[in-house]
Amino acid sequence: MTDFNTYDCVSPLDFRYYLPDERMTDLLGDYVSEAARVRSEARVEAALARVLARRGICSQAVADEITAAAESVTPAEVAEEEARIHHNIRALVNCMKNYVSDEAKPYIHFTFTSFDVVDTATAWRLKNAAHEAVIPTLMDLERTLIAITRRDAETLQVGRTHGQHAVPITFGFAMAEYVSRLGRRIELISRSADDLRGKISGAVGAYNASSLLIADPEEFEREILAELGLEPSTHSTQVVEGEFVADYMHALISAFGVLANLADDMRHLQRTEIAEVAEEFQANQVGSSTMPHKRNPWNFENVKSMWKQFVPRMQTIYADQICEHQRDLSNSASQRFLPEIIVGLANSVLRMNRIMSRLVTDTDKMRSNLAMTEGMVTAEPAYILLAAYGHPDAHEAVRNVTLEAQQTGRPMGEILFASEELRPWLDQFTDEQRGIILNPATYTGISAPKAIGVCDEWQSRLSL
Amino acid sequence: MTDFNTYDCVSPLDFRYYLPDERMTDLLGDYVSEAARVRSEARVEAALARVLARRGICSQAVADEITAAAESVTPAEVAEEEARIHHNIRALVNCMKNYVSDEAKPYIHFTFTSFDVVDTATAWRLKNAAHEAVIPTLMDLERTLIAITRRDAETLQVGRTHGQHAVPITFGFAMAEYVSRLGRRIELISRSADDLRGKISGAVGAYNASSLLIADPEEFEREILAELGLEPSTHSTQVVEGEFVADYMHALISAFGVLANLADDMRHLQRTEIAEVAEEFQANQVGSSTMPHKRNPWNFENVKSMWKQFVPRMQTIYADQICEHQRDLSNSASQRFLPEIIVGLANSVLRMNRIMSRLVTDTDKMRSNLAMTEGMVTAEPAYILLAAYGHPDAHEAVRNVTLEAQQTGRPMGEILFASEELRPWLDQFTDEQRGIILNPATYTGISAPKAIGVCDEWQSRLSL
Amino acid sequence: MTDFNTYDCVSPLDFRYYLPDERMTDLLGDYVSEAARVRSEARVEAALARVLARRGICSQAVADEITAAAESVTPAEVAEEEARIHHNIRALVNCMKNYVSDEAKPYIHFTFTSFDVVDTATAWRLKNAAHEAVIPTLMDLERTLIAITRRDAETLQVGRTHGQHAVPITFGFAMAEYVSRLGRRIELISRSADDLRGKISGAVGAYNASSLLIADPEEFEREILAELGLEPSTHSTQVVEGEFVADYMHALISAFGVLANLADDMRHLQRTEIAEVAEEFQANQVGSSTMPHKRNPWNFENVKSMWKQFVPRMQTIYADQICEHQRDLSNSASQRFLPEIIVGLANSVLRMNRIMSRLVTDTDKMRSNLAMTEGMVTAEPAYILLAAYGHPDAHEAVRNVTLEAQQTGRPMGEILFASEELRPWLDQFTDEQRGIILNPATYTGISAPKAIGVCDEWQSRLSL
Amino acid sequence: MTDFNTYDCVSPLDFRYYLPDERMTDLLGDYVSEAARVRSEARVEAALARVLARRGICSQAVADEITAAAESVTPAEVAEEEARIHHNIRALVNCMKNYVSDEAKPYIHFTFTSFDVVDTATAWRLKNAAHEAVIPTLMDLERTLIAITRRDAETLQVGRTHGQHAVPITFGFAMAEYVSRLGRRIELISRSADDLRGKISGAVGAYNASSLLIADPEEFEREILAELGLEPSTHSTQVVEGEFVADYMHALISAFGVLANLADDMRHLQRTEIAEVAEEFQANQVGSSTMPHKRNPWNFENVKSMWKQFVPRMQTIYADQICEHQRDLSNSASQRFLPEIIVGLANSVLRMNRIMSRLVTDTDKMRSNLAMTEGMVTAEPAYILLAAYGHPDAHEAVRNVTLEAQQTGRPMGEILFASEELRPWLDQFTDEQRGIILNPATYTGISAPKAIGVCDEWQSRLSL
Repeated sequence: MTDFNTYDCVSPLDFRYYLPDERMTDLLGDYVSEAARVRSEARVEAALARVLARRGICSQAVADEITAAAESVTPAEVAEEEARIHHNIRALVNCMKNYVSDEAKPYIHFTFTSFDVVDTATAWRLKNAAHEAVIPTLMDLERTLIAITRRDAETLQVGRTHGQHAVPITFGFAMAEYVSRLGRRIELISRSADDLRGKISGAVGAYNASSLLIADPEEFEREILAELGLEPSTHSTQVVEGEFVADYMHALISAFGVLANLADDMRHLQRTEIAEVAEEFQANQVGSSTMPHKRNPWNFENVKSMWKQFVPRMQTIYADQICEHQRDLSNSASQRFLPEIIVGLANSVLRMNRIMSRLVTDTDKMRSNLAMTEGMVTAEPAYILLAAYGHPDAHEAVRNVTLEAQQTGRPMGEILFASEELRPWLDQFTDEQRGIILNPATYTGISAPKAIGVCDEWQSRLSL
Repeated sequence: MTDFNTYDCVSPLDFRYYLPDERMTDLLGDYVSEAARVRSEARVEAALARVLARRGICSQAVADEITAAAESVTPAEVAEEEARIHHNIRALVNCMKNYVSDEAKPYIHFTFTSFDVVDTATAWRLKNAAHEAVIPTLMDLERTLIAITRRDAETLQVGRTHGQHAVPITFGFAMAEYVSRLGRRIELISRSADDLRGKISGAVGAYNASSLLIADPEEFEREILAELGLEPSTHSTQVVEGEFVADYMHALISAFGVLANLADDMRHLQRTEIAEVAEEFQANQVGSSTMPHKRNPWNFENVKSMWKQFVPRMQTIYADQICEHQRDLSNSASQRFLPEIIVGLANSVLRMNRIMSRLVTDTDKMRSNLAMTEGMVTAEPAYILLAAYGHPDAHEAVRNVTLEAQQTGRPMGEILFASEELRPWLDQFTDEQRGIILNPATYTGISAPKAIGVCDEWQSRLSL
Repeated sequence: MTDFNTYDCVSPLDFRYYLPDERMTDLLGDYVSEAARVRSEARVEAALARVLARRGICSQAVADEITAAAESVTPAEVAEEEARIHHNIRALVNCMKNYVSDEAKPYIHFTFTSFDVVDTATAWRLKNAAHEAVIPTLMDLERTLIAITRRDAETLQVGRTHGQHAVPITFGFAMAEYVSRLGRRIELISRSADDLRGKISGAVGAYNASSLLIADPEEFEREILAELGLEPSTHSTQVVEGEFVADYMHALISAFGVLANLADDMRHLQRTEIAEVAEEFQANQVGSSTMPHKRNPWNFENVKSMWKQFVPRMQTIYADQICEHQRDLSNSASQRFLPEIIVGLANSVLRMNRIMSRLVTDTDKMRSNLAMTEGMVTAEPAYILLAAYGHPDAHEAVRNVTLEAQQTGRPMGEILFASEELRPWLDQFTDEQRGIILNPATYTGISAPKAIGVCDEWQSRLSL
Repeated sequence: MTDFNTYDCVSPLDFRYYLPDERMTDLLGDYVSEAARVRSEARVEAALARVLARRGICSQAVADEITAAAESVTPAEVAEEEARIHHNIRALVNCMKNYVSDEAKPYIHFTFTSFDVVDTATAWRLKNAAHEAVIPTLMDLERTLIAITRRDAETLQVGRTHGQHAVPITFGFAMAEYVSRLGRRIELISRSADDLRGKISGAVGAYNASSLLIADPEEFEREILAELGLEPSTHSTQVVEGEFVADYMHALISAFGVLANLADDMRHLQRTEIAEVAEEFQANQVGSSTMPHKRNPWNFENVKSMWKQFVPRMQTIYADQICEHQRDLSNSASQRFLPEIIVGLANSVLRMNRIMSRLVTDTDKMRSNLAMTEGMVTAEPAYILLAAYGHPDAHEAVRNVTLEAQQTGRPMGEILFASEELRPWLDQFTDEQRGIILNPATYTGISAPKAIGVCDEWQSRLSL
């Protein structure tokens, strides 16, 4: 079917987030579409032919013919044949046979069962989608976050817990959290992608067919998969056991969670009253259909929303681990939806990188927000130091000072150092410690060097 | 974008289950595609214009112009304009304005905020998709199930609990379960569809804009929604609160669960060793790419698989109930995926009806399977009757008879009636009761009349 | 096992949220504990005995004996017997028999299968938990919300969309959203609780056993269930079909979503920079172990957190709709967890009512927050009115005025009315309309009367 | 609260699956109960004291006092104090102080924030629960599965795909699937447990407090965590980022999926018509309250049911990855439920090991089931060999032979070798190949050696 347009589609991926976005189709076209599925399946048949030739079972000319057929066969042909015979892999095989000589025909799908092709091709697509598309875009985002972290390593900001002002940090330190978390997810995605497995073990996994003709069917399997950069599992049935894909999808979904958290943090920092960051706005962009002044964090909201759409899909993947006996087909339709997760994630990563690389930050607002409660920040170091110098109930002592500061409006540090009761401990404070109490904005711990250290570590670990 | 084919899509709905299936696009095309979204949104603008004319705020000619524009505006135009201004509803409004006179222009989107249009149009699409597509196909399936139930109301089958033979029923009785469960879901879908709400209450739900110009903005809202067959909620913000859609989707998803259960039952009854039912096979259909003799229950497996894909999406819908203050946009992308649930369910309903209406049943196999354990079936009625006639520990007494039957291979009934110990109670059995013990296959309770009664009730309740 | 303390428990419900809280155990003790399960199952046996007596199958004295036994039997006895025979309902039956004469023994569990008792008792507990515990506490919360709504019906607040200031509302209007949403959930919980069904239809649902001895087994079932205030389903197997419980749990879970949304709104309004509301703090309460000045919205956070714990459990309930043939037991362990959802929700409702009834609101902060962007609020009404009076591109015109206001810092209204270009339309503004533009804080639409109207409606609908 | 019994609990874990089962409490008591939480948190305070002493900040005597206090403090004390001050970690600290001298008091919780303790203690409990409880029980199950695999490596069974007979395997081969899948999950659980992280970085993660007094706060953190066998994350906020726990729980939940699949396979093999395996039945066990002859796979059903209860909880864990800014508390209540997942899994592993180690297998029934369709098994090897020897459309040729076999009832092999049309290819068959066609039961591929090989590999990898 070719005479339709994207608006006839029902999936927002197809009509909105993937097909109309050339950046997306360029990045993912070889891995996520139905056409990509067919091409990758044909590629498995070609890998078989090359191994057969190497082993002298067929001639190199036959292998070349089949390899060429794998490149020529079109999704449209296969779909048409499937409509006739109601079996998608047999349809592919039939179509490929049309491209080759009678001599070559028997070597297409030779000793294979359908899911030798399907599961191996799926592993190939998922693995390469990770390495060629998902990880590179995540690396771009990682670079962007590192740049912000380095730039704002010393930019004062209030640390917030429970939405309340806590003690000061730097904005770079806050961003370093995401450098670290995203870095670790990139490593996990890479590792789990490399651990995806193919299988060439026949209809029930016992190599019944291949062992008819091949003396060393497990070695035969290894050779075919090696052509595709894959390894076999220890034990497959008709299908590869579900754990490899589950691990991979867990890596993607948990990476999505990191994005969603970053998006939420940015959304809230963009609240009118907080206003420490903002999405860049284009000149002719409409913020609201009725409130022309609005500047909404709609891209961050979109990332959060996509996360909500995709995270529940892990339930499907866990359900698909269960496959009766040597397999049932109740994971077949559901597995066709797997590439959607990649598309959803990649869309959010690209979007996030675009927004973060143009993030508007207002460091004055960060300082003035911090100033709102700066006086109270003293409470924590005061309590810690009093305790360190031996006060037996420092927390309660400082809580009382705090209450007085709230009631009188006087700075907490001033009240503290005026206390006769606390004198024996206050006298032990070093100048630097006293300085922090009297200048709460300096109470940022190791925010700045930590931020830089995190960047250094991940640039090194990820070779950025 | 028009120069692509379905194989470039990433969603299996688009390339496999919806777009290539004319039955599906005919049924759902007005409700689930992106084009349908745009058309329904334009329809809300037209409803506004008609109400404005009726109230004398604009002329009837203006309303007619706008109504015509709503029918003329194309999704492609709107997409192009959105690419320019990054706001989809403002894009629609701009495009519609191109179709009308300057006099009419101000009355498009008059006092509206974007989500007056979006949420109202969504309610319209979901409601009509239920009544025009989902429910009619479910009714077809219900009719099919009723036909099987009536036909096989007296067909003996063993009842199974825990996969073990329990006591006899009839196949019609087993199917009546699904007549009843599906009937009840049809009622719930209908009820929850009728309870979907629109909203014309402005940017924060307080009718700020409309009350500038309209003395009775809630009545104004009611009139516009009435044009579309909808009612307003008691209280909306910028958006309709999530519960109405959640109730509707719960109805759909729980109906999907009934289909999945039916599919599982059929799959298991099709197991080689059980073989009481089978999917019909077409002459040129390939069952397996390597095992030509196989007859797989692949349609039933597909229904189960689709259920696994769609049931987790309720998590997204529950998450989307949460919308900060007068709304955040973190439910926007996720809600674009809602129509997919309708498509997934409708596909499974059509498939199920196709398969069930040609279901191959083997009543001989049902009888011979029952015969495997018929002798043991006596245990339950024997125990019940002994207890009824006053035996103080009938369950234990019969368990011992059962053990003897298993050890000796003699029929349970024979051993029972030979027992001197049990004589005082056995003598009280009526002839009919004694007959059931000696002819266990008659121990079907009220299976047959119950099956018929269930059909009668649901045909009446659903006016089938 | 009685010699342990709550700290040995693994469930936070048991060691933290339910057992140590007398308010919770008083409210829910009859419905959610294991003891409640046993008592309610015994109650089903007693209902049977009373119907048997009424029909003359056993004497009234026997029925009285069994009713007394149902009240005497203890969970500890039943557990001990179950440990011996590995069947919980047979254990209950055995234990009850110990309390009655030999004459009465046969009438306990007479014609029943285990799940006649289990499912009927579950329906009884869930239904009564709703009416006696969940709904009353929700009604208390509804009253609290109505009181706030009425009190603050005219309290100015800025409406927020996307976390950005939009146009003004009143705080009462914002709270009315929750009055409406919660009211509707209370109605749904009540309706779905009333629709829970029991079943007395035997081992496979065909009344095999009861029809041996009872001429009208469906009427017999109805009579027993009526003793418990329940109705039978149209068609049960060994178990009641899962939809009734699914509908009920959907009602609870979607009510939980309303609470979670309210909690999120309050959390964000309590942010240090916004500070419009706050949880009340007790005098000796520790806000943070290290930051004595903190006032955290920890109760609101707790409600959100409990919601995250319980909402995914709908997945289990949907999975439990699937029950093979006349039933498998794969829903047995999972259904034992159902009462936890009630406990989790009730805990959050009680907590929310406690916090909301002592909510600290800062109306000065609401006004000063609104003042931050008051000047911009004019944009929407200006655009609406210009459009209403015929300006062909009012949105764009006002967007330009807005930009000028941002650049010059002059009030939007002032710039607008100074515009020569817009004069033809501005001249048509009424005094009231002009007043709104110049005094943006009055642009609250029908916030106040709407808030009152919502309270009136729900007080009437819920008879509060 | 100590005067209650387990029947007052609402969690089935507490009243049924954990507390009453000494095997469970022995195994998990140190890791999953509330008491275990308190003890492990005290242990973190003790680790701090030891490091302070080693660094000369406090004396060794003080460290010894605090270490003793950590062992003495009771959950009941802490709960009582928490009821007073509403802060659980401050309550712990207060209680510990009661056990030590004034000199030691300041060093309890010295520079700590609450979640330094909470998150570190949680990591300690989860890590040790894996290594001391979950993995050892999984290893026991793995040993049991290996024993069955080795014993039945050559036991013929039919391979089943789609519930249909496919081609033969051995029962040992079928079980080897689970040896392999479970082995791999054990490795992942171990790896993810070792990767759990603690944190001693203060209120917002920037070491604000510790850097007041400690020159090298990151080294200080490392030393304290090393006392507990843990490492710090690259970057924490007030809390450890959610990914470590998510990875760990993914490992557990996906291991649960393997158990659920095994349980389903066994349930279906126990169906009355298939009857190849059965759960062992104890002499005085009641199978059904009304059908004394039943032998239900109720333990396998229980495992499936527990899986349904716990797998959706990953949604909570993914939601808890999101933590606003330097943290909000909306993951606090939900994380209290984490140990339940360990309890649920451990219960199922113990149950599965108990059942599998006494699994009743009926090898005669395996053979007779295989015999039902043995004649058809020939189809696959016939097609494969014809293709291998050059037949251009072997699949279609054999499908026709199959149809003839079905219509005539003659063995497939006989018809095949009688075919004149296929003669040119049949003549090339080796004797061994011809033997397989005529004796289909030998068509098991490398089932037996593969089964043994899988056992060898996993015994070696897991050092069993």
